[in-house]
Amino acid sequence: MLSDIEIANAAELHPITQVAQEELGIDAVHLVPYGHHKAKVDLGYLQSLEDRPLGKLILMTAMSPTPAGEGKTTTTVGLTDALRGLGLKAMACLREPSMGPVFGMKGGAAGGGWAQVVPMTDINLHFTGDFAAIAAANNLLAALIDNHIQHGNALGIDVRSVDWKRVLDLNDRALRDVVVGLGGLANGSPRQDGFDIVVASELMAIFCLTESWADLKRRIGDIVVGHTREKRPVTARELEADGAMAVLLRDALAPNLVQTLEHAPAFVHGGPFANIAHGCSSVIATRAALRLADYVVTEAGFGADLGAEKFVDIKCRKSGLRPDAAVVVATVRALKFHGGVDVPDLGREDLGAVERGMENLERHLRNVREVYGIPCVVALNRFPTDTDAEVARVVELVGALDVRTHPATHFADGGLGATDLAKGVLDLLESSGPSTFSFTYPDDLPLQEKAETLAHRLYGASSVTWDGKAKRRLDRLEADGYGGLPVCVAKTQYSFSTDATLRGAPTGHDLHVREVRLSAGAGFVVLVCGDVMTMPGLPTTPAASRIDLLDDGTIVGLS
Amino acid sequence: MLSDIEIANAAELHPITQVAQEELGIDAVHLVPYGHHKAKVDLGYLQSLEDRPLGKLILMTAMSPTPAGEGKTTTTVGLTDALRGLGLKAMACLREPSMGPVFGMKGGAAGGGWAQVVPMTDINLHFTGDFAAIAAANNLLAALIDNHIQHGNALGIDVRSVDWKRVLDLNDRALRDVVVGLGGLANGSPRQDGFDIVVASELMAIFCLTESWADLKRRIGDIVVGHTREKRPVTARELEADGAMAVLLRDALAPNLVQTLEHAPAFVHGGPFANIAHGCSSVIATRAALRLADYVVTEAGFGADLGAEKFVDIKCRKSGLRPDAAVVVATVRALKFHGGVDVPDLGREDLGAVERGMENLERHLRNVREVYGIPCVVALNRFPTDTDAEVARVVELVGALDVRTHPATHFADGGLGATDLAKGVLDLLESSGPSTFSFTYPDDLPLQEKAETLAHRLYGASSVTWDGKAKRRLDRLEADGYGGLPVCVAKTQYSFSTDATLRGAPTGHDLHVREVRLSAGAGFVVLVCGDVMTMPGLPTTPAASRIDLLDDGTIVGLS
Repeated sequence: MLSDIEIANAAELHPITQVAQEELGIDAVHLVPYGHHKAKVDLGYLQSLEDRPLGKLILMTAMSPTPAGEGKTTTTVGLTDALRGLGLKAMACLREPSMGPVFGMKGGAAGGGWAQVVPMTDINLHFTGDFAAIAAANNLLAALIDNHIQHGNALGIDVRSVDWKRVLDLNDRALRDVVVGLGGLANGSPRQDGFDIVVASELMAIFCLTESWADLKRRIGDIVVGHTREKRPVTARELEADGAMAVLLRDALAPNLVQTLEHAPAFVHGGPFANIAHGCSSVIATRAALRLADYVVTEAGFGADLGAEKFVDIKCRKSGLRPDAAVVVATVRALKFHGGVDVPDLGREDLGAVERGMENLERHLRNVREVYGIPCVVALNRFPTDTDAEVARVVELVGALDVRTHPATHFADGGLGATDLAKGVLDLLESSGPSTFSFTYPDDLPLQEKAETLAHRLYGASSVTWDGKAKRRLDRLEADGYGGLPVCVAKTQYSFSTDATLRGAPTGHDLHVREVRLSAGAGFVVLVCGDVMTMPGLPTTPAASRIDLLDDGTIVGLS
Repeated sequence: MLSDIEIANAAELHPITQVAQEELGIDAVHLVPYGHHKAKVDLGYLQSLEDRPLGKLILMTAMSPTPAGEGKTTTTVGLTDALRGLGLKAMACLREPSMGPVFGMKGGAAGGGWAQVVPMTDINLHFTGDFAAIAAANNLLAALIDNHIQHGNALGIDVRSVDWKRVLDLNDRALRDVVVGLGGLANGSPRQDGFDIVVASELMAIFCLTESWADLKRRIGDIVVGHTREKRPVTARELEADGAMAVLLRDALAPNLVQTLEHAPAFVHGGPFANIAHGCSSVIATRAALRLADYVVTEAGFGADLGAEKFVDIKCRKSGLRPDAAVVVATVRALKFHGGVDVPDLGREDLGAVERGMENLERHLRNVREVYGIPCVVALNRFPTDTDAEVARVVELVGALDVRTHPATHFADGGLGATDLAKGVLDLLESSGPSTFSFTYPDDLPLQEKAETLAHRLYGASSVTWDGKAKRRLDRLEADGYGGLPVCVAKTQYSFSTDATLRGAPTGHDLHVREVRLSAGAGFVVLVCGDVMTMPGLPTTPAASRIDLLDDGTIVGLS
């Protein structure tokens, strides 16, 4: 089979004006083109659609993944293509890829095989400049903080308390822990600092939860960058940074329209991490898509314990958006992995391991259906090594839970390979009764009890413990009036627990909260559980060394 | 008079497709649009124009500026508009503004008054993403260096020798001197480091001197990032960084087309500092413009001792481009400043000061005509405080040097205000004999003698002295085979000397070289003379605090 970039480079794309017009009825005057195959859709135009009825919102989530990933993005693309192939008006909403993994280990994140969004190289590199804009605005605030301190510190910021980090869209371990402000009086005050990757920034989360320019500026103004010696929070608004930062994000806020290989429309907009942030593409894109299409498929990061939970408890809670159905992506490989098989042996048939691994999928299905209250099906994303017996066993075991499984081959076959899945989703939407959608916890529960609710209801943990400092921070946040915010748990995606090696569906474990961070602009409190990497490193042989530009401008080696 | 942004926001822009078609005969299929008023012109299309005759190239330079700047950009725009107003096919080539000054002190850099390029806010902010792409490629190399060291350092890089800095497009003094790689084994080796602003990077210079994708990759590969313990230079090519970096710059390399307020076409592409780098917009843009228009006006940074010298000795030497005429911008204010008047008093008539200050302009004119061999006129950029007597005196004094002066009011009056200047330039082009263009020094002069030639021929210095370390570095570069490169002097723009307070036309001073840096990819050796700021700071009240986004998306406060 061809590589992702070979397939993408050979694709015949339609002009984005044609996709917008034919698929969504958007006239070219409402597009802001970036080249011929990418466009932002004008925010004013999108506001004018407010009275249109909403399409059906389909959430794409997954069981706990293996390190290889289980294919949520490809399944999102495949399902969208399949729905469109059935003559329906369908659209995908995806996150923008970060350049960190592109030049590091994972490669691109625009789908794969015959289920990709294109132009693939553009989407994986600078795209329409959104991430660069977010980084610039983030770093302007950082510069304004240090500048305020340098010029007399009128707000009385406690220099030791500043925790607004600078960001780059790059994997660069040497920037995790740095000291800035060295070199003497003219260069400011030395202080400990660090850089995060842009997708881990609060500003990325703000960007993705924002409803409008006014809301953007308000949220930015609410950012807390540190506190005074008297422990009073200091905001970006007090630093007079909110206006200029909003100006830097003005154009980026309009959603990016691209197409799948089969010319289905897709918004690719925003891309927060699913641990330290909420892991979903922008509210603006989702809301717009629901006015433009009858079926909108959107992906949330990592497994259903992380991305889907945050989709429900953060994105839906804040925006009022409601999913009509969910698709839980599973693979025979991941089931065997959770059944105890190690990565090198995942290609070998092992029905026993499939059966043992089911407990992981089963808990995710229970959470989606019974906790979040979203009707769902399983998409079994097929790999060449899956045997028919293994696939049949999954269908049978999931069926026993009263959930239907749809094996899908969109990676190799495009939308046609997901037609059965699409029909299953349509059946589900048709047969579902009134919405049973529910948050995992109510707004007015104290922060500590919110964490306990997540731990008990979703993760199977029996206790929640806190580092002393984390607990003191939590109490302080309650006292400062932030107790009504939702929590955002940052933990490993490989386990329901905080121990990446605990596969399956562990119970009786402890959720230990190491650190508490406030994202006041985004509107949530981050609970850091275990080691969470906010600035990845590069591997021994980074993907960058294989990526090349030929003399005729062809890009090779991007995967 | 309205502010720059008020004028720009009220302007009725033509679609960029119309400007391209009507002004330059470029069909829309050869444009890569970025919105409706900015476009990159396809590099393949530009290559297809190779057989077209070249237009006339007019270099815009200036006398030594006051801290306020003398208006080279506005004069470039005004002259272009005036030439077009005379029915000629004219085009401007300008540098892209950096966001550092936009949020710092200076404000935007897209012209001013009624002589601007538009869309003004776009050009001053992210524009088409070129600077973000250069920063990303620059920082990818930095990450790859530290990553190579972290994973065993097979090339044997001496960690202490690494001098490839990271960059941001921001004023941020706290990043001038930092220590990276702290926090333990997993985060790399601690080392002293620092950030520059992107316009000070070698990669920006490379970008602007590059002829093609293949040339770009070759130049990037040539970058020297440090050396081994045995003093062997280590290149970006050895780190396998060149391909990925070139990929990041692939799209940025196509020049950006915009329009003036009067709809004249302008390329705004690349923007290196005129001290640490060569201070000119891209070779690709200039070359393309000369195929597309009959008259191309292009600006070089700072005074004629810096930008124009580097235009001649670096950009023209490397590219084969040749200017047909030069315009030296002078102001009554700057003449009085060089005649000893301090900034607060520049608005008061002072004929004596004008006369005394002439020695500065006179030396620049001599350098342009006799050293570089370029025929020239003076554009006297008029300010409201200039008296008629002062203007008459300038015309008279410059006339005595056999150079014509053309007072111009394009700032207040647009192209019409520069019509006399345009006619003067056309007369000059018509009356000039065969080219007397010349470099300041030949390639094969040793580096030290190149510096001495510049010091004696252009600056009026009587000696060149070297810090011991700088001299040793110079000798090493000669020994390593870099002696054939041109030199790039980094010094203050306010004086012919390295002392910013020595106004006029000082003689007998010493040019002291504090540091020598190799820009092997760009192809020059930087001689740092005096304090040169490569990462500016923000002022007490940064422009950022006045810049705001209104609820309807209007940007205010950008100047």
